[in-house]
Amino acid sequence: MKKIKMGMIGGGIGSFIGDVHRKAASIDGMIELVCGAFSSNPKTSIESGKKLGISENRCYANYTEMIQKEKELPTEERMDFVAIVTPNHMHFPPAKLALQSGFHVVCDKPVTLTLEEAIELEQVITESGKLFALTHNYTGHPMVKQAKAMIENGDLGNIRKIQVQYLQGWLATSVEKTGQKQAAWRIDPKKSGIGGALGDIGTHAENLTEYITGLKIKEIAADLGRFGEGRTLDDDGNMLIRMENGAKGTISISQIALGEENNLAIKVYGEKGAIEWHQEQPNELITRWLNEPKKIYTPNGNGLYPQALEISRIPAGHPEGYLEAFATIYKNFTKHLTAVNNHQSLEKIDYPTIQDGIRGMKFIYAAVNSDQNNASWVQI
Amino acid sequence: MKKIKMGMIGGGIGSFIGDVHRKAASIDGMIELVCGAFSSNPKTSIESGKKLGISENRCYANYTEMIQKEKELPTEERMDFVAIVTPNHMHFPPAKLALQSGFHVVCDKPVTLTLEEAIELEQVITESGKLFALTHNYTGHPMVKQAKAMIENGDLGNIRKIQVQYLQGWLATSVEKTGQKQAAWRIDPKKSGIGGALGDIGTHAENLTEYITGLKIKEIAADLGRFGEGRTLDDDGNMLIRMENGAKGTISISQIALGEENNLAIKVYGEKGAIEWHQEQPNELITRWLNEPKKIYTPNGNGLYPQALEISRIPAGHPEGYLEAFATIYKNFTKHLTAVNNHQSLEKIDYPTIQDGIRGMKFIYAAVNSDQNNASWVQI
Amino acid sequence: MKKIKMGMIGGGIGSFIGDVHRKAASIDGMIELVCGAFSSNPKTSIESGKKLGISENRCYANYTEMIQKEKELPTEERMDFVAIVTPNHMHFPPAKLALQSGFHVVCDKPVTLTLEEAIELEQVITESGKLFALTHNYTGHPMVKQAKAMIENGDLGNIRKIQVQYLQGWLATSVEKTGQKQAAWRIDPKKSGIGGALGDIGTHAENLTEYITGLKIKEIAADLGRFGEGRTLDDDGNMLIRMENGAKGTISISQIALGEENNLAIKVYGEKGAIEWHQEQPNELITRWLNEPKKIYTPNGNGLYPQALEISRIPAGHPEGYLEAFATIYKNFTKHLTAVNNHQSLEKIDYPTIQDGIRGMKFIYAAVNSDQNNASWVQI
Amino acid sequence: MKKIKMGMIGGGIGSFIGDVHRKAASIDGMIELVCGAFSSNPKTSIESGKKLGISENRCYANYTEMIQKEKELPTEERMDFVAIVTPNHMHFPPAKLALQSGFHVVCDKPVTLTLEEAIELEQVITESGKLFALTHNYTGHPMVKQAKAMIENGDLGNIRKIQVQYLQGWLATSVEKTGQKQAAWRIDPKKSGIGGALGDIGTHAENLTEYITGLKIKEIAADLGRFGEGRTLDDDGNMLIRMENGAKGTISISQIALGEENNLAIKVYGEKGAIEWHQEQPNELITRWLNEPKKIYTPNGNGLYPQALEISRIPAGHPEGYLEAFATIYKNFTKHLTAVNNHQSLEKIDYPTIQDGIRGMKFIYAAVNSDQNNASWVQI
Repeated sequence: MKKIKMGMIGGGIGSFIGDVHRKAASIDGMIELVCGAFSSNPKTSIESGKKLGISENRCYANYTEMIQKEKELPTEERMDFVAIVTPNHMHFPPAKLALQSGFHVVCDKPVTLTLEEAIELEQVITESGKLFALTHNYTGHPMVKQAKAMIENGDLGNIRKIQVQYLQGWLATSVEKTGQKQAAWRIDPKKSGIGGALGDIGTHAENLTEYITGLKIKEIAADLGRFGEGRTLDDDGNMLIRMENGAKGTISISQIALGEENNLAIKVYGEKGAIEWHQEQPNELITRWLNEPKKIYTPNGNGLYPQALEISRIPAGHPEGYLEAFATIYKNFTKHLTAVNNHQSLEKIDYPTIQDGIRGMKFIYAAVNSDQNNASWVQI
Repeated sequence: MKKIKMGMIGGGIGSFIGDVHRKAASIDGMIELVCGAFSSNPKTSIESGKKLGISENRCYANYTEMIQKEKELPTEERMDFVAIVTPNHMHFPPAKLALQSGFHVVCDKPVTLTLEEAIELEQVITESGKLFALTHNYTGHPMVKQAKAMIENGDLGNIRKIQVQYLQGWLATSVEKTGQKQAAWRIDPKKSGIGGALGDIGTHAENLTEYITGLKIKEIAADLGRFGEGRTLDDDGNMLIRMENGAKGTISISQIALGEENNLAIKVYGEKGAIEWHQEQPNELITRWLNEPKKIYTPNGNGLYPQALEISRIPAGHPEGYLEAFATIYKNFTKHLTAVNNHQSLEKIDYPTIQDGIRGMKFIYAAVNSDQNNASWVQI
Repeated sequence: MKKIKMGMIGGGIGSFIGDVHRKAASIDGMIELVCGAFSSNPKTSIESGKKLGISENRCYANYTEMIQKEKELPTEERMDFVAIVTPNHMHFPPAKLALQSGFHVVCDKPVTLTLEEAIELEQVITESGKLFALTHNYTGHPMVKQAKAMIENGDLGNIRKIQVQYLQGWLATSVEKTGQKQAAWRIDPKKSGIGGALGDIGTHAENLTEYITGLKIKEIAADLGRFGEGRTLDDDGNMLIRMENGAKGTISISQIALGEENNLAIKVYGEKGAIEWHQEQPNELITRWLNEPKKIYTPNGNGLYPQALEISRIPAGHPEGYLEAFATIYKNFTKHLTAVNNHQSLEKIDYPTIQDGIRGMKFIYAAVNSDQNNASWVQI
Repeated sequence: MKKIKMGMIGGGIGSFIGDVHRKAASIDGMIELVCGAFSSNPKTSIESGKKLGISENRCYANYTEMIQKEKELPTEERMDFVAIVTPNHMHFPPAKLALQSGFHVVCDKPVTLTLEEAIELEQVITESGKLFALTHNYTGHPMVKQAKAMIENGDLGNIRKIQVQYLQGWLATSVEKTGQKQAAWRIDPKKSGIGGALGDIGTHAENLTEYITGLKIKEIAADLGRFGEGRTLDDDGNMLIRMENGAKGTISISQIALGEENNLAIKVYGEKGAIEWHQEQPNELITRWLNEPKKIYTPNGNGLYPQALEISRIPAGHPEGYLEAFATIYKNFTKHLTAVNNHQSLEKIDYPTIQDGIRGMKFIYAAVNSDQNNASWVQI
């Protein structure tokens, strides 16, 4: 099997998420990083590329050059897709250009800086006929797939209550004033958009909720916090949600929840069963039932649906983690892309798309809108 | 030390909470059950009393008779206090009569059927000069005391975020239609008051929040659920809260969270530290810190404040549970009562009082009011 | 129902286990403490009794006096049974005297100072026709009963592997040199017998193993540690075991496992299923199965056997702890005693007896013997 | 940075451990798989190679051919090292040939079929001057590094007690009779050696013990089980250990512990502190202390030693798993190899070597020897 060729935009030396994308892309041995515009600083871009073992002539000064030059290469040689791992404000421009230049795209979330961009991007994708994946990586965990499959199959019955949290503590102090690069752009509306924690982690919480339950959030009432001194964007959020089917729930997000590392968790209660999943212990799915004891499912363990089984890489009890879930997005995207390259048709492959991106942007907008109106209900 | 003499109102054969009160009162060997009006049915009352080893002449047909007759006994013989363990609508009348007849009172929560009653009861207590304890039993856990002491001592710094849940699943199906006695009165507004789950478990969540943080909930936005067929009272609640100091948070309660047993939990995040406590694992207090690893405190373990140490009964690692925490309310109340009986003055002893009861009623009223206004903010 | 009357030997002010016995005996409201010889020091005995609210004339100077005097009281008034809560060397003499004087006995473990005493005691019990209970309290947990019932019912199939640990850390430093009373007698062979940790906690581990599996330990190879400076008795033990049915396993005990509180745990693996139980989280029974996910049972939760259901006092999710399990020994003993008092026959009631005591002593002897022979195998 | 070139022996389609090695080698983007002899069946070897995207001319029919042909390639092109992922009996021959042909080697464990081979291999390595890494992958977890560093730094004081377990259940039934390939060779002494579970998982337990504590196991008493019908090799083991410093402990291993997945865990108790680590929850290190509460360390969390920090790939709370730990062996080996290629000197880099391999073989031999002598002590 020939490897799929990836170009990267962003993710230079010192980047967190760029490195994650590279590792995730390489785990399954299906993807090869062939070129990149790793930084807005041409020198850094080239240095980064060299460190990564990329031939110097394919370390580009900027993404425009990269897309241009790659397009001119022979089909066999040029990159198949672009991975965009820049801050939010730099998602849309390269995504649009890449798609219009005939390249498939994998993009980090939130999909764009504004809702308008997201909607425009959807059109660009449609017109280009190219593939687009959004890295809502948490959907790539076997136990998340199992939870989704259980609900899809009606095991839980009608859903009534949902409880979601995404708690981090790394912005509990004013780290943005200490030169912390990750913090600096995230609290800057020009780079982050109108949502702070909302965009960074809230969209994950929203996406996971809709992905697992198969239900849309209908409306939201959001009370946002801006606890860090001088911050204009939210670093905390407390939300009520109502789902399209009448289920109710809460979403609690924070980046000032001191001491929390990456505590994303979801509980869903139906009329016949319930599921509970914690990102920090991703290899357990806790389930509850009307007349049976609590059951704990594990990747490659007993009693799983095919959707969960097919994405586990190693035997039960050998923990997979954050990178492996992330890699599942890349794997499924790559399978799709390979099929497209080979002119094969393919059943729908499960990875997040522009639709997820648009939902995420609508979620941010609705939450901000609600917060500005003292947490009154706003439709998503 | 002479034992304190307890009379009981309610709690006949088959009662859940009456039995809990009796066990809690007897663990520490300071209290003796001497009489009771255990049921509104005189025959059941007497039968229950006999089963409990109470002499027949002190098994009364109703609480009026009991209070009347006990009052006529010699001081040395008559009951010292009354424990009221009836459904909510039967808290106020016997409490008022007992206090006005010169008896101290321990009462289950929520304190009364209506807010008006609670306010009137406060006056009755004041005028009577008698003691009144409300059994918010979860405040009796050593690790809850430790959490409170840590916050009181400033270990967590200013509080910013609070997350509370109290999840049960026993009303997930229509058990009230199967003759389940506990369910039947709880879903009946005439016996429960205007709150369903709100009164039964919501008040515990509210009380624990204010007890641990030392902060009042300023306002609340509540979206209540009534999922059980034909129920008029809430069996589920999703709430935003704002504390008097600017902290924000969520309270999620439910009695239709299928499979949950008694999942009360609280997380409090400050500027310097954070605490997390789960009622189902009550012998752990999880704490998080700015520059130190997570620390887990245990009853009678290392590093505790005196408030936590003094109420642990057995060495570290020997789990205390629900009954022991409940017993702590009785123990502290009894210590107070003994001091009063002996005309000793006493520093404030820590047990819930009528003020906690009034806060609870205000919480119920505010939540119902908010819910009726589409979850708009209501001051407590 | 008339309360059963208990006299206590040992357990004066400052005693740990005496207080535990009293609390355990009183939780269920079936037992009344009427007299005691709480200390070998008559003055302390009387003071302790007064503190406990016992009338002065029944606070005895020593156990001989107590047994003598109580015997002379009218049947209706005198104690029904004696609870012996002294150090090991003071179990046998009062137990023998009490039984021969017509009193039933509850005794702490290990049952006696020597194996010979235990065997003699068995005969005394038989001849007296009186009841004798040994407080192997951990058998009183609902989840331990469930585990036993599952194995009894063949749910696990033939047992193959067993792993038991009982780890404490309170003797990690030389606390016996600091005047710690609990430590002082436990490291003294004259008061403890030939086993240190072996007698104090090893017998619990052994008893729990045989109780849950229904299998006898056939032989043992023990490598004991004496880590505390100057200690002649074991404070640590590492053992291989072979069961009568061919199952194999390990028992690891320690009182120098620094930081461990009371970490008793057992895992049993059969051909069809497996169970795992931890004393510090006593309200969970973890079970594993050939083709099903892990299932977690809880007291009063779904799917339990009657043996587990009948001893749970409160609804699922309301944790019971150490004292409640201890109380279950007293409750079952009291039920038995009540039946005997009422000349009723009764199906076998489940509480530990002299046979458990003898097994415990044999276990201590075999382990010490094995250790003296460089951990060679010794039959129990 | 140029990628290091890897050739693979074994690990064809359907292999578990070959796939693990490939994923582990590729995560960090430092290694490129350039050739392989993936199967003893030439056709399978080539097919496997093609699936992996390897050019056909470098998919070899067998390892002899591969080593021969690669040697003839220009330095710039040929593989740098060989990864050997075959069953145990096929470790030594290709390792020896590769080393003698000038290639570095990474080899799966146990290092060889016999102790004699292991000792010979050590000499071959020395003579060749080439690098040799053994994939004791569990030493690659950040929390294992932290545990080791804590003990090295004296934080725990003198070590007294050790408890290790490695429990699996996948051989609880006779899967080897159902054509399960993994099981088939593992129960065959010709392919596995004299140890069954001992070699497969026991060596991991032994290696982890010596790695974390920095102490050698001095002697061992082993009682092995052969529970699966017809098995001649051990599928279960219960062992006492004595360490060179006087510490004592137990090792319990099993592949018939029904329902267990990959439950490797270690507890080490010193005079001042204690550590506990579980492979299935690898991102937590539980620590206990004399006068402080239990502390939980996490990768990239607070309070870590550099040894733990430097191998964490992603921020705290983003779980790394089995593959990442495995990858750490490859990463450190590759760093060493790169330095050697560049004629740079390098401080000792931490990865398991032939010395670990020899210890593992001695452990197997001592355990089997002890078992044959009724679990008497045997020096390692």
